[in-house]
Amino acid sequence: MSTDPRRVLVIGIGAGDPDHLTLAAVKAMRRASVFFVLGKGEEKSSLTDLRRRMLDEHASPGYRLVEAEDPWRDRERGDRAGYAAAVHDWRSRRADVCERLIREELPPGATGAFLVWGDPALYDSTLAVLDEIAGRGSVALEVEVVPGVSSVSALAARHRITLNRVGRPVRLTPARRLAEEGPGEDADVVVMLDAREGFTRYADRDDVHIYWGAYVGTPDEILVSGPLREVAGRIASLRAEARARHGWIMDTYLLRFGEQAD
Amino acid sequence: MSTDPRRVLVIGIGAGDPDHLTLAAVKAMRRASVFFVLGKGEEKSSLTDLRRRMLDEHASPGYRLVEAEDPWRDRERGDRAGYAAAVHDWRSRRADVCERLIREELPPGATGAFLVWGDPALYDSTLAVLDEIAGRGSVALEVEVVPGVSSVSALAARHRITLNRVGRPVRLTPARRLAEEGPGEDADVVVMLDAREGFTRYADRDDVHIYWGAYVGTPDEILVSGPLREVAGRIASLRAEARARHGWIMDTYLLRFGEQAD
Ligand SMILES: C[S@@+](CC[C@H](N)C(=O)[O-])C[C@H]1O[C@@H](n2cnc3c(N)ncnc32)[C@H](O)[C@@H]1O
Ligand SMILES: C[S@@+](CC[C@H](N)C(=O)[O-])C[C@H]1O[C@@H](n2cnc3c(N)ncnc32)[C@H](O)[C@@H]1O
Repeated sequence: MSTDPRRVLVIGIGAGDPDHLTLAAVKAMRRASVFFVLGKGEEKSSLTDLRRRMLDEHASPGYRLVEAEDPWRDRERGDRAGYAAAVHDWRSRRADVCERLIREELPPGATGAFLVWGDPALYDSTLAVLDEIAGRGSVALEVEVVPGVSSVSALAARHRITLNRVGRPVRLTPARRLAEEGPGEDADVVVMLDAREGFTRYADRDDVHIYWGAYVGTPDEILVSGPLREVAGRIASLRAEARARHGWIMDTYLLRFGEQAD
Repeated sequence: MSTDPRRVLVIGIGAGDPDHLTLAAVKAMRRASVFFVLGKGEEKSSLTDLRRRMLDEHASPGYRLVEAEDPWRDRERGDRAGYAAAVHDWRSRRADVCERLIREELPPGATGAFLVWGDPALYDSTLAVLDEIAGRGSVALEVEVVPGVSSVSALAARHRITLNRVGRPVRLTPARRLAEEGPGEDADVVVMLDAREGFTRYADRDDVHIYWGAYVGTPDEILVSGPLREVAGRIASLRAEARARHGWIMDTYLLRFGEQAD
């Protein structure tokens, strides 16, 4: 039996527009013989469909797609430590599933791939899961990462804006951390993973601008921008409506605080 | 004479690896007949060469490349307001140059393009320059943005890391602002535009990890990671050496403060 390491490609595929695939991602898809997909509840079918269409177009004929039920995740809101603990626990159950799939479906020496939404470097657990598997030491992996266009870059492009103002920082944050920490002075903040319209908290300020996008890059894309005070209500209702229609929502937004002449 | 607007594509081309071009960027290149490049001092020739190779491979035969000297920029370090003022002033001189080029080289109704390093949304002035031109009202532009893989995403991919830790924010910042503001508690900070090894400031702390990369994605790529305390000296000398050899340097790094078990 071969003890060659298994090669695992972690491929960023962009956040909705199939043309956001890079040439490197296309080449990487061609190199892999097996693709692993962990389904994600309601989002599952449409996102898996998009991945399958990409593979049919770009992967080598005869590729195999291995799907698995994503282990159940405790989404009850707790405090910060509780949240991190729940994520870690979920991650380690994910690692169990992935380790088994890799061992059973990917022969030593062969090349498999995970297709990751957006850029693997942002709010995605694939790399941590692979680290955890490698740390257990029972299966040798060689991991290679292909960066992708994140939903953040896609959002900015559709609004034709830069994320930062001249010479200034920009913060990317999960909504729950913005709620805890506040924006700080004159900040530019990109909010992700918002389950409950966190922007409404600032809707009575008159110095905040929002650039919002849902399903960015897909045919269902919705974009709204403007002074938060004026557009917050519209965004909240568009969002509720879209979420009801699709059963799930993916949205991201930039909040620009302390809008002075730039 | 036609009064059709001119179409201007702002195309993110990735930060060094030609395979980081997206399919959308390739298609956009094919649509443009004229490409505008503003040269940037010492960096100019090698970066312009890379762009030209991309165009030769992907653009429509017969494309035109219009190069211009970038207006001189006051790089003297001032205070924060002085810095922003210098950038704004430079930007408005850039707008003068670009407006003239667009008017003279791109007929109304035709499609031109700016090839932007990395992702146009991060620390790039092309969109602001086009906004300024549009605001002057003398030439009608229709701007479309194609997002790209940023140097930040490329850096993370080469180190096989996520930028954020579980459920936490990550800040992208110009080095000068990190120096002014400090990292804050347990922060994850990506530093760009560092002229003078800003990381050395934290090299005596024992809770900071660095993931550093120069010329990421190019054949000259250099990567170092580790506890900052242990590797800061090596990075500083590699950096000085590389800068002397090339005449310029592009580097980016993630600083992870308060490294606890994740
Ligand atoms: C688990 S994170 C994954 C982010 C992904 N790795 C990336 O680079 O975009 C999921 C969050 O990304 C954002 N997101 C992903 N795709 C999006 C899209 N097409 N439009 C808007 N937001 C999106 C949403 O904030 C969503 O809650
Ligand atoms: C004017 S900003 C442009 C950033 C670009 N729009 C992007 O998305 O990467 C230039 C800074 O980007 C970073 N950078 C750009 N290309 C890089 C590369 N290939 N390797 C490392 N850093 C890079 C450096 O920090 C550099 O000072």
